Amino acid sequence: MTGLDRLRNAVVTVVEVGPRDWLQNEAAHVATTDKVTFINLLSAAGLPVIEVSAFVSPTWVPNLADAQEVFARIERRSDTRYTALVPNRAGLERAIAVGVTEVAIFAAASETFSRRNINRSIDESLIEYREVCRCAADASVRVRAYLSTAFGCPYEGAVPVAAVLTRTRQLLDLGVFEVSVSDTIGIAHPGQVSDVLGTLQGHVDDGQIALHFHDTRGTALANVLAGLLAGVRTFDASAGGLGGCPFAPGAAGNLATNDLIYMLDGLGVVTNVSPDRLDEATTFIGSRVGHELPSRYAQARRARRAAH
Amino acid sequence: MTGLDRLRNAVVTVVEVGPRDWLQNEAAHVATTDKVTFINLLSAAGLPVIEVSAFVSPTWVPNLADAQEVFARIERRSDTRYTALVPNRAGLERAIAVGVTEVAIFAAASETFSRRNINRSIDESLIEYREVCRCAADASVRVRAYLSTAFGCPYEGAVPVAAVLTRTRQLLDLGVFEVSVSDTIGIAHPGQVSDVLGTLQGHVDDGQIALHFHDTRGTALANVLAGLLAGVRTFDASAGGLGGCPFAPGAAGNLATNDLIYMLDGLGVVTNVSPDRLDEATTFIGSRVGHELPSRYAQARRARRAAH
Repeated sequence: MTGLDRLRNAVVTVVEVGPRDWLQNEAAHVATTDKVTFINLLSAAGLPVIEVSAFVSPTWVPNLADAQEVFARIERRSDTRYTALVPNRAGLERAIAVGVTEVAIFAAASETFSRRNINRSIDESLIEYREVCRCAADASVRVRAYLSTAFGCPYEGAVPVAAVLTRTRQLLDLGVFEVSVSDTIGIAHPGQVSDVLGTLQGHVDDGQIALHFHDTRGTALANVLAGLLAGVRTFDASAGGLGGCPFAPGAAGNLATNDLIYMLDGLGVVTNVSPDRLDEATTFIGSRVGHELPSRYAQARRARRAAH
Repeated sequence: MTGLDRLRNAVVTVVEVGPRDWLQNEAAHVATTDKVTFINLLSAAGLPVIEVSAFVSPTWVPNLADAQEVFARIERRSDTRYTALVPNRAGLERAIAVGVTEVAIFAAASETFSRRNINRSIDESLIEYREVCRCAADASVRVRAYLSTAFGCPYEGAVPVAAVLTRTRQLLDLGVFEVSVSDTIGIAHPGQVSDVLGTLQGHVDDGQIALHFHDTRGTALANVLAGLLAGVRTFDASAGGLGGCPFAPGAAGNLATNDLIYMLDGLGVVTNVSPDRLDEATTFIGSRVGHELPSRYAQARRARRAAH
């Protein structure tokens, strides 16, 4: 009837990006030991992929200066992939030195965002990433790519779907195994998700696409539903909804893993994530950052606990 | 591909319930004149149906004691339906006395909620509503029904889909033109929406069903998408997301009209509502209640305004 029945028993991979995507913007200081505990609780909750940190310049992102120590101290479960963002070859080498076997690079679909975010044109960034992918392949490290501003740019506004297709193909041609088509400013709606995925299909395998949404306008779960209906099976999310969009201060951040798991469980989708243990991880980190988390599901759970 | 293409140019009716569903629980005092301005701004925004107030006991809901005055003072546009909640025949008569031509009654799908919320069993409430519907028909007043706790009950937990079907049929048999199948505690997810609507279909026309969601767990827009795919074309929402669920203090309230219109516009659905004028109405009432509104879209707009 609605097409949702056929999602029952579908297997979905949830990529937990909280520890990296959130912490790079978090105002509160979070101790390395708390990051380690948070990541261990997330893997105990069954999350199959956790983006642990980024090997970027500490001057650039001081919050992630302890990437190496975090990687050294976390318990690595055999069924969890622990990944790191790397901006260039130097970052990749630092990641490899601490035993990271999967990294992520980040390109943009709009020129102005690329120049302002990473100080390079898109083409320049792809030259750098070609080198990263080559070295990663030599070290048997898998590479994932983010494609930022795929649904809109804070500087240029609308981003042509053709640009999203071109850049996605270019990234895949570098050898990345997956492109996370990302709504950096949280402006995507299900109609647009459907359009973008419709354009990619035929040029890209469904299994090479992940989706990364922010809940800035409340549409994140509806966008996931549109993605699921289009055949996408990998979604990024952040425990508690951590990770604000720097271009919309005060607004909601990443899609909350908690909200996502609630919806996926309800659809009969298989994720292997325990909502109760995810709640433990979220409660723990919430107590460390000292401010309310944007996840509506987490808020509802806390309210229920308070009432009982 | 996703089935969303066929929603383009679909006509959807958005029922604005903020002035009633929100105000009955709002802690701040809102002056009658501000309610009137708010409602006038909502109709100027193009909302086709506005639930203005309720003709209930002022002892029971002191915030709505000015229902009569509000109805007397609003500007009535010919293309807007102005409705009121009525609990019984006495309420209906007060509504008719001020020229109301459409009212709403509220029954529950779970026995405990019915007894605690309106102090009557479901069957007792239906006896009362039979009388309301009879008198309304005599006065050429249309009657809509809410079916509360259709997706879960704060006291009983899960509510059998069979009960939702039985009560929906009973309400339609009383002569109501539409049943708003309501997720009182904001627990519904798209899989459940699909299941409930699948059960109703075949026994009820799509045009007799509306859906009423709370965004307590962040699923409201995804639920609307599931409803649209199942053929439902009427959705309740509240400007700014006003209207907290009394059973989940601190949690998000009604689905925000702002978020809903953003998604529907993106799908190419026709609603006749101007997002800019809706934003004006929302900003106005936000300034009167003195606290942040839950609508994520409204928050994102405010953040953008503040940044420019």
